[in-house]
Amino acid sequence: MDEVLNGGIPKRNVVLLSGGPGTGKSIFGQQFLYSGLLSEEPGVLVVLEEHPVQVRISMSQFGWNVRPYEERGLFAVVDAFTAGIGEAAKRERYVVRAPDDFTSLIDVLRDAVKDLKASRVVIDSVTTLYITKPMLARGMVMQLKKVLSGLGCTSILVSQVSVTERGFGGPGVEHAADGIIRLDLDEIDGTLYRSLIVWKMRGTRHSMRRHPFEITDKGIIVHHDEVFRAEVGKARDK
Amino acid sequence: MDEVLNGGIPKRNVVLLSGGPGTGKSIFGQQFLYSGLLSEEPGVLVVLEEHPVQVRISMSQFGWNVRPYEERGLFAVVDAFTAGIGEAAKRERYVVRAPDDFTSLIDVLRDAVKDLKASRVVIDSVTTLYITKPMLARGMVMQLKKVLSGLGCTSILVSQVSVTERGFGGPGVEHAADGIIRLDLDEIDGTLYRSLIVWKMRGTRHSMRRHPFEITDKGIIVHHDEVFRAEVGKARDK
Amino acid sequence: MDEVLNGGIPKRNVVLLSGGPGTGKSIFGQQFLYSGLLSEEPGVLVVLEEHPVQVRISMSQFGWNVRPYEERGLFAVVDAFTAGIGEAAKRERYVVRAPDDFTSLIDVLRDAVKDLKASRVVIDSVTTLYITKPMLARGMVMQLKKVLSGLGCTSILVSQVSVTERGFGGPGVEHAADGIIRLDLDEIDGTLYRSLIVWKMRGTRHSMRRHPFEITDKGIIVHHDEVFRAEVGKARDK
Amino acid sequence: MDEVLNGGIPKRNVVLLSGGPGTGKSIFGQQFLYSGLLSEEPGVLVVLEEHPVQVRISMSQFGWNVRPYEERGLFAVVDAFTAGIGEAAKRERYVVRAPDDFTSLIDVLRDAVKDLKASRVVIDSVTTLYITKPMLARGMVMQLKKVLSGLGCTSILVSQVSVTERGFGGPGVEHAADGIIRLDLDEIDGTLYRSLIVWKMRGTRHSMRRHPFEITDKGIIVHHDEVFRAEVGKARDK
Amino acid sequence: MDEVLNGGIPKRNVVLLSGGPGTGKSIFGQQFLYSGLLSEEPGVLVVLEEHPVQVRISMSQFGWNVRPYEERGLFAVVDAFTAGIGEAAKRERYVVRAPDDFTSLIDVLRDAVKDLKASRVVIDSVTTLYITKPMLARGMVMQLKKVLSGLGCTSILVSQVSVTERGFGGPGVEHAADGIIRLDLDEIDGTLYRSLIVWKMRGTRHSMRRHPFEITDKGIIVHHDEVFRAEVGKARDK
Amino acid sequence: MDEVLNGGIPKRNVVLLSGGPGTGKSIFGQQFLYSGLLSEEPGVLVVLEEHPVQVRISMSQFGWNVRPYEERGLFAVVDAFTAGIGEAAKRERYVVRAPDDFTSLIDVLRDAVKDLKASRVVIDSVTTLYITKPMLARGMVMQLKKVLSGLGCTSILVSQVSVTERGFGGPGVEHAADGIIRLDLDEIDGTLYRSLIVWKMRGTRHSMRRHPFEITDKGIIVHHDEVFRAEVGKARDK
Repeated sequence: MDEVLNGGIPKRNVVLLSGGPGTGKSIFGQQFLYSGLLSEEPGVLVVLEEHPVQVRISMSQFGWNVRPYEERGLFAVVDAFTAGIGEAAKRERYVVRAPDDFTSLIDVLRDAVKDLKASRVVIDSVTTLYITKPMLARGMVMQLKKVLSGLGCTSILVSQVSVTERGFGGPGVEHAADGIIRLDLDEIDGTLYRSLIVWKMRGTRHSMRRHPFEITDKGIIVHHDEVFRAEVGKARDK
Repeated sequence: MDEVLNGGIPKRNVVLLSGGPGTGKSIFGQQFLYSGLLSEEPGVLVVLEEHPVQVRISMSQFGWNVRPYEERGLFAVVDAFTAGIGEAAKRERYVVRAPDDFTSLIDVLRDAVKDLKASRVVIDSVTTLYITKPMLARGMVMQLKKVLSGLGCTSILVSQVSVTERGFGGPGVEHAADGIIRLDLDEIDGTLYRSLIVWKMRGTRHSMRRHPFEITDKGIIVHHDEVFRAEVGKARDK
Repeated sequence: MDEVLNGGIPKRNVVLLSGGPGTGKSIFGQQFLYSGLLSEEPGVLVVLEEHPVQVRISMSQFGWNVRPYEERGLFAVVDAFTAGIGEAAKRERYVVRAPDDFTSLIDVLRDAVKDLKASRVVIDSVTTLYITKPMLARGMVMQLKKVLSGLGCTSILVSQVSVTERGFGGPGVEHAADGIIRLDLDEIDGTLYRSLIVWKMRGTRHSMRRHPFEITDKGIIVHHDEVFRAEVGKARDK
Repeated sequence: MDEVLNGGIPKRNVVLLSGGPGTGKSIFGQQFLYSGLLSEEPGVLVVLEEHPVQVRISMSQFGWNVRPYEERGLFAVVDAFTAGIGEAAKRERYVVRAPDDFTSLIDVLRDAVKDLKASRVVIDSVTTLYITKPMLARGMVMQLKKVLSGLGCTSILVSQVSVTERGFGGPGVEHAADGIIRLDLDEIDGTLYRSLIVWKMRGTRHSMRRHPFEITDKGIIVHHDEVFRAEVGKARDK
Repeated sequence: MDEVLNGGIPKRNVVLLSGGPGTGKSIFGQQFLYSGLLSEEPGVLVVLEEHPVQVRISMSQFGWNVRPYEERGLFAVVDAFTAGIGEAAKRERYVVRAPDDFTSLIDVLRDAVKDLKASRVVIDSVTTLYITKPMLARGMVMQLKKVLSGLGCTSILVSQVSVTERGFGGPGVEHAADGIIRLDLDEIDGTLYRSLIVWKMRGTRHSMRRHPFEITDKGIIVHHDEVFRAEVGKARDK
Repeated sequence: MDEVLNGGIPKRNVVLLSGGPGTGKSIFGQQFLYSGLLSEEPGVLVVLEEHPVQVRISMSQFGWNVRPYEERGLFAVVDAFTAGIGEAAKRERYVVRAPDDFTSLIDVLRDAVKDLKASRVVIDSVTTLYITKPMLARGMVMQLKKVLSGLGCTSILVSQVSVTERGFGGPGVEHAADGIIRLDLDEIDGTLYRSLIVWKMRGTRHSMRRHPFEITDKGIIVHHDEVFRAEVGKARDK
């Protein structure tokens, strides 16, 4: 991915990671955080769609064991899923008691980032925040951008789009971000293909091509030296 | 189907089974439960669209006689159709008195799963739950997922889409599920063809191809070694 | 038509007969009832769009004289058109006084079916019932299905779709029916062609092909041994 | 046109004459009335979009001088345009004082038809009646049909559709009519072509082909022996 | 343009001049008025989108100096833009004080037409009148038509459509006009082309072809002897 | 760009600069201002989406150091982003305290333009002003046009459109501007291409072609002697 971005996501950028169901957005975000941990960059993962326990299990299936990093204060999960309900949730350190209250989410997120001096943040997904109130989408993304960028974090906001939607999550959202990465899953001649494209990225001369990628048991592998071309891709836009 | 999924639906996954009218969703769900029964895995079928009596008749037409399993406490129908009205309904054990009240459906479902120690659950269909209140769709699916996954069940949520719709049941729903299986019925050159594709499935390296399938008098037979290709499939997306 | 359905519509099925204007839906429904009469199966025709007198005239133009059957108590028209206003209406036996009140329509229909011990019912059209209240469509169709199926009738619900619409009458309606037959009228190279396809039919191995049909002065003749192919049909989906 | 319809519009039919702007709908309707006058069939023209004076001028440009027929009581204009305002309007015999009040339009129309014993009626256009209240469209067309058919008239209801719209005036309207004639104006290779097609017509075996037509200074001439084919027509549906 | 229209716009016609942004609608309207002035036909230009001062400057850039005609009482600008605010506006003779009040616009327009005995009127644009209240569009255009036609004027109503819209300004508007001229600007192979087509024009046998045109420093030049064909135009409708 | 526009944007024109996310709209606007500064033309940049500090950093990455010009009173940033909150914001001279209040934005903008005798203004973006109230879009753009044109400024209004939208920001907005420049980013055969087209520009004979452009570390370079053709562009409109 570093080759595609010509050196990774630039510092302090807030990037929209956009894709349909099954495209690998969550894995991409988790891998972004874990590869930060490997170079001792602290990271925070805000989960809105999945139990924190399940998230740790999912990550471990790719060999990404975050427990040691959690113990060393390099990694934290912000639980915006359970509302603190359930036994397992009681063991979480960062819990958003009212997941529907955007302000309290911002507060807990800010605490976690400050405690860990986090340099990487992933929110999975921002779509959950405004799915029933689209008019607020832009404002929420703008505020997240102010907070995260102000705290010095490089961030990924996971944006869920419908399988038939070609945009990145709505006009308000897609212009507010510093970068946009799109993950795609296309059926061509009865076969599913994965590809990604960096649509914009402030501060770097990123690849202007669509690249095929795979999800392996070690995580995502991007074929930065290959182009996912129109010969096969033709069917996508029809 | 096991070959397509590389070993069946992974444990505790909540799978969206999406398709238009006449694609075979109900049969697929019933077959999933009956094949569990054959290996002594208890199962629960929640019916919202059909009388429980009619459902047992339909299953028996494929040779799936569930009565013995019901008597042995391995199978149960949760009746969310009759509201307990009618003679036949009085003989049902699990009846949702107020089918429009999502909470009471959850309660009866939880009882049934616990009583049977069910490991497989099918809800036919979840679309009924939110067809007149689409804003609630994601929340309902999220809650079903929490309950079913928490109880240790592997589950299929039947999602009805319009014959002209290419999505899986709306953006909120399709991202919430652990897996998506799509059933299709396409008219090509004046002939109807059946095919299915696994769009996503957490925890398994599923087939990345679209497979033709048939509905026989023994149920669904998936041709896992064949691909339903674009040469014939071309007409679908136009 | 029997060959297409491999033996006719299975008993107790509630079938959606869907098509645009001019496709022959009313004729199809009347022919279904009249062919029942020929083998002494009592039938009920619910008319919402046409004066009962006009309906009998239309049927007689195809040689289907229902008067003798009405006198013998084998056939009845339920008048949900006139609201009982007008001289001619006063001679009708089954009149829905408040055609906008779905409950009273159900009541009159139930009476007629019971009086005649009807085994065939046609409602022309159900679309009229919910055209200005689409949110109620599914519920109405579900209730009709419960009543008609409970009374042992095999039924056709005529569903009007717009000339440009490819669906069968909306997502709620098309999943509720036991079967779907679609009638089409397509302009290809400046000529109009008629065809039909059975999209789903519970309980029978129906034809999976689109068949051309004609409207003659004896009624509809389906060419069950011919396929209406893509070579000519291509223009339809563009 | 008689050849296309195999003998003209059948008696008492209520026909929807549908087309975009500039397709010749008004001329078609006026010609229908005038050719009735030539064989001494009395006719009524309801105008909702044009001053009655202007309508008589327009008709005279095709050589259709209605004044003598008005004087003999064979022809009448129902003025649903001026609301009786203006000098010229005061000389009109049939004036709808409140053109927005559908009931009063029906009343004046009924009077005119009875006075003249009219056998042909044209309403130009019905779209005006419900353009701002589409939910009422079907009901209005149904009521017109009851009145006109009850009075024994053969009628044309002019239906205006947008230049980009392929339907006939909405699902409610197009199913309510006994017949549908569609007029088209298509740009192909930089040239405009006129054609018409009879989409449905109860009670006659009409042409199943699209025919080219011209507007000359004698009115519309339909080339009933020619087909407007796909070779040139191809561009229309894209 | 006269050749295209076979002698110009017929007297008293109210013509919709429809086109997207940048197609030359304002220039077309101004040229229509100025060419009237050259043959001593008085004209009125109603401006709703541009300061009257700016409009005179724009016209002079094509060599159309209206000042002498204004002084001779042959030309007037009705200012429905400034609401009378600003120094320059105080020097205008015809000012609509409340541009949002359609009635006062009609009043000022009527005064101007009567004062000048104007035979040509251009309203640039009517879209401004109803852009936020589309339900009123048809009624406004009908009323303008009554007034302008009643005063004996030949008129152009400028109708703004979106760059992606193929219609002429909505179904209500496009049927109300006596004529429709459409101006187009199409990108084909990376180059912009201008063309126009007369879609309808009551009272004249206008060209049935699409003609290329240019905007030069003398105004619009229509190539009435050329057809803008599908070979280049093909891309437009896709 | 001057060659494309045949001498730059004409004085006092208000130009809509329209494009999807990542197309380079902000850079284009900043470059327009900076190239003015190089010839001592004072300029004002209104920022609604980005912190003024971040904007200055972004500009400096292209070698556009505005600080000296700010000190000399030739350049100013109007901060309509921070609402005056934060340390850095306190050092800004022109701050819109209530960014949601359009009138106060107009007031601060007017002050800045008068203080600097600015001849160039960029508003990045106007879309922010009306994203949640589209009915007000045209009115706001009209008012900006009156103020800016009245003050003698040549202005660029940045208009954000969705990645899938072919228009320029809505019908009201696109007709109100004196010019429209569209920036595009198209994926063709797996590669992203940048191009721009001048759709309209009052007062100049601009290029009628689509030109490729690049974003380099010196800013935007337009290839005015090249055309971005359909051979590669074909995929765009499908």
